Formats: sequence, structure tokens, C-alpha cells
Amino acid sequence: MKLYIGNKNYSSWSMRPWVLLKAFNIAFEEVRLRFDFTPGSDFYKTLDAIGATGKVPVLVDDTGFAVWDTLAIVETLAERFPSHAIWPRDPQLRARARSVCAEMHSGFSALRNTCPMNIEADLSGLSAELLAKEPALGRDLQRLQTLWADALAISGGPFLFGQFSAADAFFAPVVMRLHGYGLPVTAQASAYARTLQTHPAVAAWVNEALAEQDFIELDEPYRKSR
Amino acid sequence: MKLYIGNKNYSSWSMRPWVLLKAFNIAFEEVRLRFDFTPGSDFYKTLDAIGATGKVPVLVDDTGFAVWDTLAIVETLAERFPSHAIWPRDPQLRARARSVCAEMHSGFSALRNTCPMNIEADLSGLSAELLAKEPALGRDLQRLQTLWADALAISGGPFLFGQFSAADAFFAPVVMRLHGYGLPVTAQASAYARTLQTHPAVAAWVNEALAEQDFIELDEPYRKSR
Repeated sequence: MKLYIGNKNYSSWSMRPWVLLKAFNIAFEEVRLRFDFTPGSDFYKTLDAIGATGKVPVLVDDTGFAVWDTLAIVETLAERFPSHAIWPRDPQLRARARSVCAEMHSGFSALRNTCPMNIEADLSGLSAELLAKEPALGRDLQRLQTLWADALAISGGPFLFGQFSAADAFFAPVVMRLHGYGLPVTAQASAYARTLQTHPAVAAWVNEALAEQDFIELDEPYRKSR
Repeated sequence: MKLYIGNKNYSSWSMRPWVLLKAFNIAFEEVRLRFDFTPGSDFYKTLDAIGATGKVPVLVDDTGFAVWDTLAIVETLAERFPSHAIWPRDPQLRARARSVCAEMHSGFSALRNTCPMNIEADLSGLSAELLAKEPALGRDLQRLQTLWADALAISGGPFLFGQFSAADAFFAPVVMRLHGYGLPVTAQASAYARTLQTHPAVAAWVNEALAEQDFIELDEPYRKSR
């Protein structure tokens, strides 16, 4: 099983299944493709060759079959590895975990667009300016904290639905955005973010992101260089 | 089991699980909430009361537990009704069906934003102008047709993955957009669109949409009235 991912510093979507696989100790081969959005780039050529659609992450199984998009990858892994509680075992917690992952998947666009993940950069000085310029960012932050508070109230924590699950993997890049952009959150949200950030699978991704020396302009709206 | 939906004429997200439930003859009570995005509206009050997050559709099970977002609803239904092939039975087709649904869920933003679903309206006169003004719309259409062609090539049709599945429910509102905006597509895409549009569950939704007499300004970028 291979997981094709982008730059660890920038690729928030790649981070999700990678962290999930690591957290559950599921063996896989990582194939890291350097971001290059020029038509005909190696990035696109490699993805074409495996039958994917120009985006990472992609999971390729032993038969060479490509599964793309984080949600489809997570559901496929949950089916293939039923001994792991990739989704919570309780049906209601599982349904709720899927709701919040799907909400993250299609929503929070202000947070995602205004604060693209950039693990290595300290952009905390921008926080006040970004919140003032983009009111939707504040609304996304508000909703995020309500969503986390509701999940933690149902489950009792320490992760969103008790034990670490796909839902936490989905919010791992969000936690890195809160950190990197110094976005103000409640004490509860901050505590959950710390719990998630210190999870070994998340910490492992972050360390490898910090070791990268790349600078991708398209992912750097706020810097000219490192 | 209750399914909370918005206006049938406009609510593309509501259409998906409704069509899916009807197509598989799964009994449910429909609760139609008229779109009203004014803070404190009945629309928001009702969704708050069932523990949802201000968006439709929402599935509420017999215990009163709310499941929101189409993808989470579909996965929950697939678990609860295993005798129905809501997802294809073949693991690879199932994985691919999930990939394309997830791709639809977070992507195709030009198609969704430029051509909001409006079943009752004939907006086919706008087609050329919209395609000229919004190059991303053409790219979305291109990708859509490749996605459909690939799925039909794997499965043999007549639906995306052989028999009608959740993937077709996900593309039903897209087919209504192609129709309403008169968007140009290949003969193959047009044939699939016709197959889907004449599916009894899709036709039933469309009939009920046509019977509505509502005009929601926020969903009408191109008309002043009916």
C-alpha cells in the first residue's frame, strides 16, 4: 500500500491520512511528490500515471488501484482494517465523527484560504490583521470551537470522540493553522489542540515538515522567502 | 427517521439523500424547511432545535440523533441498511464511488457557484456568457465528463457504477444544472444525464420542485422574479 503525498510543510490534505495511518501503526510506503503546479510537471505526470486526478493524497493499494480524496481514503482504510477503531465504535459517535469530518471537508473555506497550512512559518504576527480583514475567518473559528466543544462534551475527550480517531486526523492541519497564525481560541480548544499536537503521529509529521527546505510560492501568500 | 431538507427547487445538497432514500425505497418522513437565511429565522430555529448546524440536509434517527452533511448521511444509511447496495458491492467500485462523491463534495466550485441549482428556471440562454466569463466553469465541465466517462468505462453503466448508487444521487443535482443552464456536454455525458434524470426518484424530486412557487433571492443571481 502506497500513500502519495505533497510537501509536508504545506499539504494539509496529505497530512490527514498520513497521520491516521501512523497513529494506527498501519504499514504503508510513503511517496512524497514535491508540489509543482506547472502543467506537465513531474507532480502531475506521476499522478496521471497512477490513475489519479492531479491532487494529493492518493492511496494506491497492492493491486495498483488508486483511491483519492481524504474521505474516500479514510472510509476505505476503515473497511480494510476493521480491527482498528479508525471511526469510533459507537454508532452515534461514529455518525457524528463523520458529520464533522464532512463539514471540515467542504467548509471552513475562510480558515483554509486565509490561513493556508505552513508548519515551518511563524505567522502569528498576522493574526489580528487577518481577523479584521476577513470576518468569515472569525466565524469559522467560532464554529470550529463549538464543534470541538460539542464533540468533547459527548465523548468526554481527550480526543474529539474519546480515543484518537479519523476525526482528529481531520483536524490536525487545523491545529497547525491555529498554532502558526496565532489564532485566539478558548482554553478548552487550546487544550485539545495541545493534546493533538503532541500525539506522536502528528509530532512525527511536524518534524518531517520542519526538515523540509522548500519554498512553494503558491502556498506562501505572506512571505517572499523563508 | 426524518430527513430535513430545504426548498426542492434550490437545495442541491438536500436532493442527494432524498433521491437516494427514494431510489432504495427506504421509508422516511420528509421535513421541508423553507430557506430563510435571516438570523433567528424559523429555518435556523428548527435546525438548532434538532442539534444541527444551520444547514440542510439533516437526518434525524428514531432516537432524535442528528446526522448532518450528505456524505455522513450516506455512510450512516449504508451502515443501517446493508441489504441495499447504497455503495457498489465491489470493493474497488465502492472505493471509486466514494472518491468521486468526495471530489464532488469539496470540488467543482465554479460549477456550483456560477450555476446554482434552479430546477424550475430555464437559464439555457446564459450558457455561452457564463462559460466565457468563468473559465473555471469550462474546466469543471471537462473534469466532470472525464470523471463520468472513467466510471462508466469501469462499470459498463448504465449508472456510474452499474446499478444506481449513492454516486448517482451525488450527481443528480449536477445533471439538473447541465439541463437548466444548457451546458454543452458530450453525447456520452448527455446520455448518462438523461438516464439519471428519468430515474423515478430523480423525476419525483423534480416534479415536486416544479410545484413549488417560491422565489429565494439569494439563490437567484440571474432573475428578479419567476
